[in-house]
Amino acid sequence: MDYITDPRAIESKSMDIIDGLLGPLPISEGERKVIKRVVHTTGDPEFAKLVRWSDGAVSTGITALARGASVYTDVNMVRVGVNSRLLAGKGADAVCAISEPRVIAEAQRTGKTRAMTAFELLAPEMDGAVIAIGNAPTALFHLLSMVKEGRCRPALIVGTPVGFVGAAESKEALTEADVPFITVRGNKGGSTVAAAIVNAMLLQMP
Amino acid sequence: MDYITDPRAIESKSMDIIDGLLGPLPISEGERKVIKRVVHTTGDPEFAKLVRWSDGAVSTGITALARGASVYTDVNMVRVGVNSRLLAGKGADAVCAISEPRVIAEAQRTGKTRAMTAFELLAPEMDGAVIAIGNAPTALFHLLSMVKEGRCRPALIVGTPVGFVGAAESKEALTEADVPFITVRGNKGGSTVAAAIVNAMLLQMP
Repeated sequence: MDYITDPRAIESKSMDIIDGLLGPLPISEGERKVIKRVVHTTGDPEFAKLVRWSDGAVSTGITALARGASVYTDVNMVRVGVNSRLLAGKGADAVCAISEPRVIAEAQRTGKTRAMTAFELLAPEMDGAVIAIGNAPTALFHLLSMVKEGRCRPALIVGTPVGFVGAAESKEALTEADVPFITVRGNKGGSTVAAAIVNAMLLQMP
Repeated sequence: MDYITDPRAIESKSMDIIDGLLGPLPISEGERKVIKRVVHTTGDPEFAKLVRWSDGAVSTGITALARGASVYTDVNMVRVGVNSRLLAGKGADAVCAISEPRVIAEAQRTGKTRAMTAFELLAPEMDGAVIAIGNAPTALFHLLSMVKEGRCRPALIVGTPVGFVGAAESKEALTEADVPFITVRGNKGGSTVAAAIVNAMLLQMP
């Protein structure tokens, strides 16, 4: 079996193939890099048509991360998918509280999802952070209500919940909120997509 | 904003929607549960047409996991996506060596990917295990060469590498190998898909 084993050569060839698939797009180079990494991560060029952001959101995210913003995630898959080496270089971290005993206990008490409970408990420390939600529509809905109430002012929300129950609606609500965002339309999304969007910004930090 | 917050109600409604999307299929109930969880995890019904397995692979995987087989993964996103509580109930674990210092050092020395280096070093302990590869074609190619050489006899390989460089080819090679497998055709796949397939089997353990 003959195959490329050098990781840099694999990524470089992949990005060249994706460039060919995408063709020219009326967006900045930095925004194009976000779309390319999502397609690279999913093997699914349809994502290029689904990615949406508020004006300047990609630049806003890069600036926040370069200044040392930490990344708060809804699930551990997003946390470990984010490039922790690049975050650590800015003194930042990837944080997910879903497995903390206090979150599990509170979620059992209220019957709410652990993901939304985690954001409720983390709210006081998320001002200025990048928040990446790859899985749970409930977490995104709840975060948006906290933003609306002025209880939390993140620098950017990357919201790509996946599935058939509430995911598309939660992402639609994100596009209408008064907060910088990056999302994908429809049912598709997931932890790998959220992590890819964050990593595309981390890789562009000055 | 009005949305369902009970996690069991969300999953139950999602699976009902997916059942309606799939319609009848000429497969066992256990196999159908694998397909449903992949669609649930990706929000992408096209996966139902892409999933492939060797005869009896789903039963083989459930039996191995019920007997306490551990799950070896190529990347940490798959490791944390696998239901560790169900594994622990059988005295098993989810294992990923990609971040171990010995793997990083060896990969730097050889110029090979860390994922394939990790499987090289873990080979002696992977007999009888379930191996789940969600990201790296190189890891799957290398594992298949170790299986062919008799250096490793896993109970089942779940192989869903993603992307445009080697992924489809590595999965095609998996379908031709002399080992039980579950995979998806083409460029799509990823860590969430590999974890979903393993979790669908864990949830069916007697």
